[in-house]
Amino acid sequence: MLCGMESHDGPLTRLRRGHEELVLDLLRKHGRLSRGELGKLSALSRTTLYDIIGGLLATGAVVASAPGQGPRKRGRPVETLTLNPEAGQAIGIDFARRAVHVAAANVAHEIVGSASESHAGDLSWVDRTDLAQRLVRSLTGGTLEFGALSAIGVGVVGPVADPGGESAHARGVDGLPELLHKRFGAPVLVDNNTRLAALAESVWGAAAGDEDVLYLRLSHGVGGGLVVGGSLHRGAHGLSGEFGHVTVEGAGARCECGGVGCLETVASVGAVLDSYRAAGGRAEDVSALVAALDSGDGTVRDVLRAAGSQVGRVLAAVCNAVGPGVIVIGGELAAAGAALTGPVEEALSAHVLPLSRHRLEVRRATLGEVGGALGGIGLVLRESSLLSRYPTRRSEAQGERPDPEEDL
Amino acid sequence: MLCGMESHDGPLTRLRRGHEELVLDLLRKHGRLSRGELGKLSALSRTTLYDIIGGLLATGAVVASAPGQGPRKRGRPVETLTLNPEAGQAIGIDFARRAVHVAAANVAHEIVGSASESHAGDLSWVDRTDLAQRLVRSLTGGTLEFGALSAIGVGVVGPVADPGGESAHARGVDGLPELLHKRFGAPVLVDNNTRLAALAESVWGAAAGDEDVLYLRLSHGVGGGLVVGGSLHRGAHGLSGEFGHVTVEGAGARCECGGVGCLETVASVGAVLDSYRAAGGRAEDVSALVAALDSGDGTVRDVLRAAGSQVGRVLAAVCNAVGPGVIVIGGELAAAGAALTGPVEEALSAHVLPLSRHRLEVRRATLGEVGGALGGIGLVLRESSLLSRYPTRRSEAQGERPDPEEDL
Repeated sequence: MLCGMESHDGPLTRLRRGHEELVLDLLRKHGRLSRGELGKLSALSRTTLYDIIGGLLATGAVVASAPGQGPRKRGRPVETLTLNPEAGQAIGIDFARRAVHVAAANVAHEIVGSASESHAGDLSWVDRTDLAQRLVRSLTGGTLEFGALSAIGVGVVGPVADPGGESAHARGVDGLPELLHKRFGAPVLVDNNTRLAALAESVWGAAAGDEDVLYLRLSHGVGGGLVVGGSLHRGAHGLSGEFGHVTVEGAGARCECGGVGCLETVASVGAVLDSYRAAGGRAEDVSALVAALDSGDGTVRDVLRAAGSQVGRVLAAVCNAVGPGVIVIGGELAAAGAALTGPVEEALSAHVLPLSRHRLEVRRATLGEVGGALGGIGLVLRESSLLSRYPTRRSEAQGERPDPEEDL
Repeated sequence: MLCGMESHDGPLTRLRRGHEELVLDLLRKHGRLSRGELGKLSALSRTTLYDIIGGLLATGAVVASAPGQGPRKRGRPVETLTLNPEAGQAIGIDFARRAVHVAAANVAHEIVGSASESHAGDLSWVDRTDLAQRLVRSLTGGTLEFGALSAIGVGVVGPVADPGGESAHARGVDGLPELLHKRFGAPVLVDNNTRLAALAESVWGAAAGDEDVLYLRLSHGVGGGLVVGGSLHRGAHGLSGEFGHVTVEGAGARCECGGVGCLETVASVGAVLDSYRAAGGRAEDVSALVAALDSGDGTVRDVLRAAGSQVGRVLAAVCNAVGPGVIVIGGELAAAGAALTGPVEEALSAHVLPLSRHRLEVRRATLGEVGGALGGIGLVLRESSLLSRYPTRRSEAQGERPDPEEDL
């Protein structure tokens, strides 16, 4: 879903974008260039170059220094061009069920910070937006100009279909993109927050630098996302990464989605706690479960083994179909560590195509609860027509790993 | 896997390709242009334009008419440029287990024909290549110039990993790309033939025009392919589309792949014939099975229902993960028609995320046994650096549907 942003696709537009990228790349490398220098370095005709520069000045991506500031040559002073240090920021916002997470990136696409705040589950969208705005201000105050924001990437709970699709509206986010667009004065991109976490893990997290990533989130729901060739995969109708709704037990429990015996009914936080209690254990949340595990409770171990085996089997099916290079497991339940991931890996190995076995790696997510917000920035960097013009270097982006969870 | 073809990826190379595409597109539209006219229409600087034209002349993509052939203006005759009518052909070859299939495309990317011939299962790669060359000659004699071939797309049985990867070699095709490169004097691209059939169905077949396609082939093996955003999806190590090796029965039969209870052990042609015989039926092949079905044999119907249900369940898991828009079912077993696809659709609907149910469409493949060879052409059109410069119009390509199977 997209709000306030144009979409271009023709061959001439693509060519124009290529020209813009070249000019921006040259300015990035050289810092400051005159039009004459840009002409020589870019090999563009004078007419085309001036047209491209005009466009970049108009969008604010590039600024011209007043004659006199630039290096003087003989005769009249030469106007020079630089990247606009105030252009190109991106904000990511994740509207989770009971919390808002935000993250901000500077002009070089480096994450400058993130912030989170919990709230009651019934908070209105206007109040959540107020909260998001406050958190963003706390991050960007002084260093980033609101007015120069290039785009906001927003994560929401539940499926997000194509722009204008119905399923985003079905979950009560009707009007959210418009509201955010008005508040922040920037284009808004929306996607499912778990899918955004998948993208973030592939850019800054456990799978940084990997192009084909399967991300599974074991939380109050079970979901995930696929990164294919470095891009977030959405599917034909925005309904992809629904690993939690793969059937694992023909005669299993009814699932929130309307199905029966879905993975979510055996491997969500709630399902695992229920199994533990049914076996006589006592735990209110994942922390208590992990504490019991640490104290040597064999029942927790059995319960996690049962859930992990089903997870591994579903992962094997998806791996056979899709062939990812790395599997990243996140969500609260990942805190159980090897007692969970061990059985996952065993079942995965037992059920995946034998040829793939030694090619798959399971890693624990590193970005924690701010992953969805970071993914919003990732979405902007990959999809915004303005920001995408700034060539990013992956290695630079990887240097920054905000708020990592402890190692497994 | 790729042989004899360069790979370019830098931003300057991309920009150069953009320039080349523009020049080729202008020549396609206008037929014949002088350098001066190209300069005006392309907005490129004279230096850049002449450099681009020089490159296109050197690769043979463009030819210059001798001064005098072109339209004369006052003063000296003007040299004009056109697309080379002999450049840009593509050949697709599918080396199946016991047959070679070939297909050829002309400069406009239109399929000009296809041909097939069976052979013994133990035929050497040199003999198979001889057969392929003979079939290609029978197709292209007189109308296409061998020397002008731009690339060959080749399908082989079994997994094909990354360029230089080991798994292609493991299946005995070691040296095949080099052999074909020498014989045809053109770059060679290799991929799994079932994946190529998936690509072909999304370009010319049952899913023509769809960008997100799941193709399942029920044949002596069970395999398939995913088309994602219009491109063939390979996965991190070339091991994708292995739907036949998703586990469906924990305590099932051992599979050729080394696993246990794979879909292939219940839904391949051999598995279905075995089940039918075990239930007292008599059939040597799919034709006999279909004949029994047509004569009202309830046992065939039950056997197909059992296999179809397992197929539908695996498809549901893959659909939840990937979210395709269209599912295409091909392979010999598809000849069983609704007795197979009915149960497939029922199980798919029962196990897919309820939100996705009405968004999925199951269609029967239309390209038949030549799909793999057509997919080889598809691969060349999408991946060859020379051919990809020719802008194709999908609607043109869709006009041609060679050798379709009968409708369901």
